[in-house]
Amino acid sequence: MSPFFDSRWIEPPAQVSELGSGPGLPAGFRAAGVAAGIKASGAPDVGVLVCDAPEATSAARFTRSGVQAAPVLVCNEHCDLGMVRAIVVNSGNANAATGRPGFENAIKMQGAGSIAAGVPERSVAVASTGVIGVPLPMDAVNRGIVSAAHELAPDGDVAFATAIQTTDAFEKRARVSVQLSGGSVTLTAQAKGAGMISPGFATLLCFVQTDAALRHQTCDLLLAVCVKRSFERISVDGQLSTNDTVILQASGAAAVAIEPESDDELHFGEALDAVMRQLALLIARDGEGARRIGRVVVRGGDEPTVSAVARSVADSQLVKTALYGADPNWGRIIQAVGAAMPGTAPLPVDISIEGVQVCARGAHVPHDADALAQAVERDEVEYEVGLPGEGAEVELFFSDLGHEYVTINAEYTT
Amino acid sequence: MSPFFDSRWIEPPAQVSELGSGPGLPAGFRAAGVAAGIKASGAPDVGVLVCDAPEATSAARFTRSGVQAAPVLVCNEHCDLGMVRAIVVNSGNANAATGRPGFENAIKMQGAGSIAAGVPERSVAVASTGVIGVPLPMDAVNRGIVSAAHELAPDGDVAFATAIQTTDAFEKRARVSVQLSGGSVTLTAQAKGAGMISPGFATLLCFVQTDAALRHQTCDLLLAVCVKRSFERISVDGQLSTNDTVILQASGAAAVAIEPESDDELHFGEALDAVMRQLALLIARDGEGARRIGRVVVRGGDEPTVSAVARSVADSQLVKTALYGADPNWGRIIQAVGAAMPGTAPLPVDISIEGVQVCARGAHVPHDADALAQAVERDEVEYEVGLPGEGAEVELFFSDLGHEYVTINAEYTT
Repeated sequence: MSPFFDSRWIEPPAQVSELGSGPGLPAGFRAAGVAAGIKASGAPDVGVLVCDAPEATSAARFTRSGVQAAPVLVCNEHCDLGMVRAIVVNSGNANAATGRPGFENAIKMQGAGSIAAGVPERSVAVASTGVIGVPLPMDAVNRGIVSAAHELAPDGDVAFATAIQTTDAFEKRARVSVQLSGGSVTLTAQAKGAGMISPGFATLLCFVQTDAALRHQTCDLLLAVCVKRSFERISVDGQLSTNDTVILQASGAAAVAIEPESDDELHFGEALDAVMRQLALLIARDGEGARRIGRVVVRGGDEPTVSAVARSVADSQLVKTALYGADPNWGRIIQAVGAAMPGTAPLPVDISIEGVQVCARGAHVPHDADALAQAVERDEVEYEVGLPGEGAEVELFFSDLGHEYVTINAEYTT
Repeated sequence: MSPFFDSRWIEPPAQVSELGSGPGLPAGFRAAGVAAGIKASGAPDVGVLVCDAPEATSAARFTRSGVQAAPVLVCNEHCDLGMVRAIVVNSGNANAATGRPGFENAIKMQGAGSIAAGVPERSVAVASTGVIGVPLPMDAVNRGIVSAAHELAPDGDVAFATAIQTTDAFEKRARVSVQLSGGSVTLTAQAKGAGMISPGFATLLCFVQTDAALRHQTCDLLLAVCVKRSFERISVDGQLSTNDTVILQASGAAAVAIEPESDDELHFGEALDAVMRQLALLIARDGEGARRIGRVVVRGGDEPTVSAVARSVADSQLVKTALYGADPNWGRIIQAVGAAMPGTAPLPVDISIEGVQVCARGAHVPHDADALAQAVERDEVEYEVGLPGEGAEVELFFSDLGHEYVTINAEYTT
């Protein structure tokens, strides 16, 4: 069985042990996933996840798009995001750009979730993913919620993870234990996402559970930091979505409390960071037909510039097609760097690919072209960009752009 | 023979008559294009264009990238851009990211052009296009310049236009006459460009000639306005290039003077605008394998926002693949709109495709899906986006993203 942490770019912390790819949620959680007929394919499309602990804490983050889907609006306006008990999700329909009726459907989903999970309405979060601008088939959604409620189980995470997928080619699920001073806790997560993925968040849903006891301020702080270092650092196609939702829930059922500013907080945060970065990497790797993924690391004098350059490289169709074609065409890297820094020519930029320096102070340097050509044929390719100054650094994972992406996206709705 | 102005989106002004697709420069110009062995294919790769009038005026615009190619740096530092007499161009190698030796090679190209054309060094502009980061083969370039100098002819524009191409699938050349109060003048242009094309300029070269007499301030003013409305309004892949160069030259040989702030200036400007917009459209249509082109028109309250939204739509891989697949998936349009306007949800955006309104105030509206599906199968597809407010409007042409783009760009250097 291949391990969850399978990339040289993400080192799991010493306190983290993988629990394998089998099912199983942390104590205090149950989940289910069912096929309700929203997807024409008949694949599972409604998931429900419930935390049975009344004192559950939580935190959430959403897309910053100017066009937010109805469930995102409902979560922000009608949900106590620090105490989410239940999450109701449908795939196959984004319930975005659906106007007032869409908003009301999201409210109805929340109500149905409340009844199904036996928790207050304001503790139910809702999420949708799929096609934009089509009315949500509420009868199917309601049937799905009722049916899922009957199947809620501590090992329902696999079915739940399947029910939230759209164009995903493989499952994105984590299950680890984290050794803390008061004992070990379990950390699990289910994510979806393959297209409409941008460094400024993504069409992704990610639900994270733990049986540790966290204050909700701690949930919020840890989630904020980890989202910034994971889902805000990937690009499949540079497309900020309408529906992105990440929710962390803590049941406290393991009776291991994590106090603010403690070593345990640090250790749990490291575990959460590694899990979320690996999930982000899996989303980039899925990347709607991606063959390879790249990691660009940009170093320089200030954070806004290194971020802008990293995004310019990671979002470049030319860099992505070169990655797909195993083409060590670093001219496209320097082109993307220059595009992000107008008016600064001549710019003394350094570029290395897989440790081979190809450009120094803005000019090509002789290098072993055969070794480089071999290196870029690997599944993971690393690009390093050095800009003037020091102190700022950012990494970004991105997928390639190949025929499979075109095929998937030219034929998605029709 | 198909006309030059072949799009419903560009209406040639009444004072403009097409002169057909044959060769022929305005009075006072000669050109040539030869194969010098820079391209492995043996295709033409060196072009020279000379204005024989000592009093020639001109204006130029270049990429704003932080990584400018050596010829762009040389044009800006060592050329009198208001009195360009000769232009020396090579294709097959961009002479970008080539450091000090690259800069010196561009200086040598300028010197060779000066000798070949018999004009002062500072009146010679240089341009290169092709692969980035590879030393320019100067022996071949020099041979090409010498050989082209022997072939300079008033009808050498076709050979010149061929010699500046790289991945272009077809020729981009204009030849029209413009009726002014003092008589008619001729306006010709040769452009290249297919990939690495962004709304903030493009990997494009465009050379424009007229036998009208223009003050160089007039040249500069007209070129500035027309570039903003043409080459800054297209997107193939959103990739700002290192080499973009546009040069307008006026020989004055027709003895028709265009005075500042005259009707003639307006009429000539309209002609230049139509020619450059049509050339920009041809570049988007070429688009490295493009099957269809789109035009997005965004209207709203302020220029920065409508521009940002238009670019977000035109650069979206999801919109481009939908255009390729003739998929009327307007969800991707609204997603791109939202991505460009973070923090504004819920946004009352209107969207029409080919005149069919699909979204009003942020929500889908019932429409004739069959009629829409037929409409998006045409060669040109129009998207209109309405944002709150009024007074600002921008149009942007963009190509689709299909298998041919991937094939071309995954296999370009190797």
